[in-house]
Amino acid sequence: MINKLIEKIRKTNAPIVVGLDPMLDYVPGHILDAAVRGLGETLEAAGEAVWEYNKGIIDAVYDLIPAVKPQIAMYEQFGIPGLVAFQKTVDYCQEKGLVVIGDVKRGDIGSTSAAYANGHLGSVQIGGRKCSAFHEDFITVNPYLGTDGVKPFVDVCREEKKGIFVLVKTSNPSSGEFQDQRVDGKPLYEIVGEHVARWGEECMGDSYSYVGAVVGATYPEMGKVLREIMPKTFILVPGYGAQGGTAADLKPYFNEDGLGAIVNSSRGIICAYKQEKYAKFGAGNYADAARQAVIDMREDIAGALG
Amino acid sequence: MINKLIEKIRKTNAPIVVGLDPMLDYVPGHILDAAVRGLGETLEAAGEAVWEYNKGIIDAVYDLIPAVKPQIAMYEQFGIPGLVAFQKTVDYCQEKGLVVIGDVKRGDIGSTSAAYANGHLGSVQIGGRKCSAFHEDFITVNPYLGTDGVKPFVDVCREEKKGIFVLVKTSNPSSGEFQDQRVDGKPLYEIVGEHVARWGEECMGDSYSYVGAVVGATYPEMGKVLREIMPKTFILVPGYGAQGGTAADLKPYFNEDGLGAIVNSSRGIICAYKQEKYAKFGAGNYADAARQAVIDMREDIAGALG
Repeated sequence: MINKLIEKIRKTNAPIVVGLDPMLDYVPGHILDAAVRGLGETLEAAGEAVWEYNKGIIDAVYDLIPAVKPQIAMYEQFGIPGLVAFQKTVDYCQEKGLVVIGDVKRGDIGSTSAAYANGHLGSVQIGGRKCSAFHEDFITVNPYLGTDGVKPFVDVCREEKKGIFVLVKTSNPSSGEFQDQRVDGKPLYEIVGEHVARWGEECMGDSYSYVGAVVGATYPEMGKVLREIMPKTFILVPGYGAQGGTAADLKPYFNEDGLGAIVNSSRGIICAYKQEKYAKFGAGNYADAARQAVIDMREDIAGALG
Repeated sequence: MINKLIEKIRKTNAPIVVGLDPMLDYVPGHILDAAVRGLGETLEAAGEAVWEYNKGIIDAVYDLIPAVKPQIAMYEQFGIPGLVAFQKTVDYCQEKGLVVIGDVKRGDIGSTSAAYANGHLGSVQIGGRKCSAFHEDFITVNPYLGTDGVKPFVDVCREEKKGIFVLVKTSNPSSGEFQDQRVDGKPLYEIVGEHVARWGEECMGDSYSYVGAVVGATYPEMGKVLREIMPKTFILVPGYGAQGGTAADLKPYFNEDGLGAIVNSSRGIICAYKQEKYAKFGAGNYADAARQAVIDMREDIAGALG
């Protein structure tokens, strides 16, 4: 799957992932109203609205980008109907040929991580049959529990040719509280990065590992160091746009082959129609606004990478 | 909810939580076969089997214990039908008066943690209506992203009088890889523990905070130190039984008031019928075996606490 991701990045010339993180107040009124008319003010209506909203965006941008990253929390908040919308979104994106990165940030003790790995990347055995549940192509993983909490994901990646991105240095303001703590002069995120590089050696694609890392665009100095520590690791970079990271900040995340990183934007794309810059599209054409925002992001990044 | 938990611990005289972590090979053959006969070898059959299995256990033990802890990964691996079984389990346990600790280990950047907090502990606004999704009483939270990833959970706890248990020192063998790293001579788990105590001050019940901690039974020396660092923090203690923690290891987790900790057992209870000690019950009476295992665990812990 890392090979497919890289091939698609090359083909689209866009190291971009669109974050499908639908807050209900991002959804244009006409979509939400239609869902509520049919289903009442219910979780079912929220799930339906989110799915319709996503579908519009996917149809408008799928030919421009290699991958999407649905954030499962935004679906899970609506309970079962929300997770049905998540599942439909994953399925639909895969039908459209997109690589799907489930932003689930799971991680637990070994046997429990194995259940998450099976549910999101692999399959479960039911009687004589293998059944797969959410079947994303990649997921994000939290490393706080150490190797035996991450290993089950790596094992499933190796079997299924799927991938993970392990949280190393996150984009949020207080990420440093624990991640930057210095251990013998070295920040913890570097130690985690060293582990990610090691875990990844067991699971190599053609040029990069199936085990990637998450490093926020909001910390480019740290990105530079982590790029060196993890030369074969693909980096998923959140924090561009709405969170404050700029295109100029992105260069250190890439290798000299022009690869090695994929940059996420969520709000900046899916909610573009609410920005002044794209206001002319209006809520009715929110998907066209998203398409234009993807084109602009592609140019912005290409310009900065030179 | 922390007051309710403490009241129920006092009433049952059992600082015990039963982990409802149903692996499919724990489910007795007659239950799984019936589900597969009706629904085929499908995720739906797995969900149905897990729910029937849980229901039997809950009916057999609910009067003996204050709380249950369903591990959501064991349901999520079966996709939507698995999560329907999770939801039914939460609802049924609450009907039986049990406190439900959703072992979800969520944690993300602020806005995303807020979505998880709303989905698991609070509610979401849909039009003019507040709808709640999974509505556990407590959930577990991963602190790797720092204060702004934990704060949204604390905020919802304060509003809804619900609670969280933040991972501080987990029970698994490699938990020390990152959690034990020394920062100026002090292990990271102590620094996390200090934060948990501070977060908890904002959110106090009568004698303990709504913000608890997870500290594994497998590390009693560390449990002792953490008990001192977090005097008003209730500690959820996994790792007793199948993972190797013994009753003698548990004393340091409790305060002098005899409170302050609740000990989880999963496999040791729900899969008791597969142990030699309880084999006489047989798979048909797996729920009675679970009841006997709870009674034995209660005595074991009472004996060790003196």
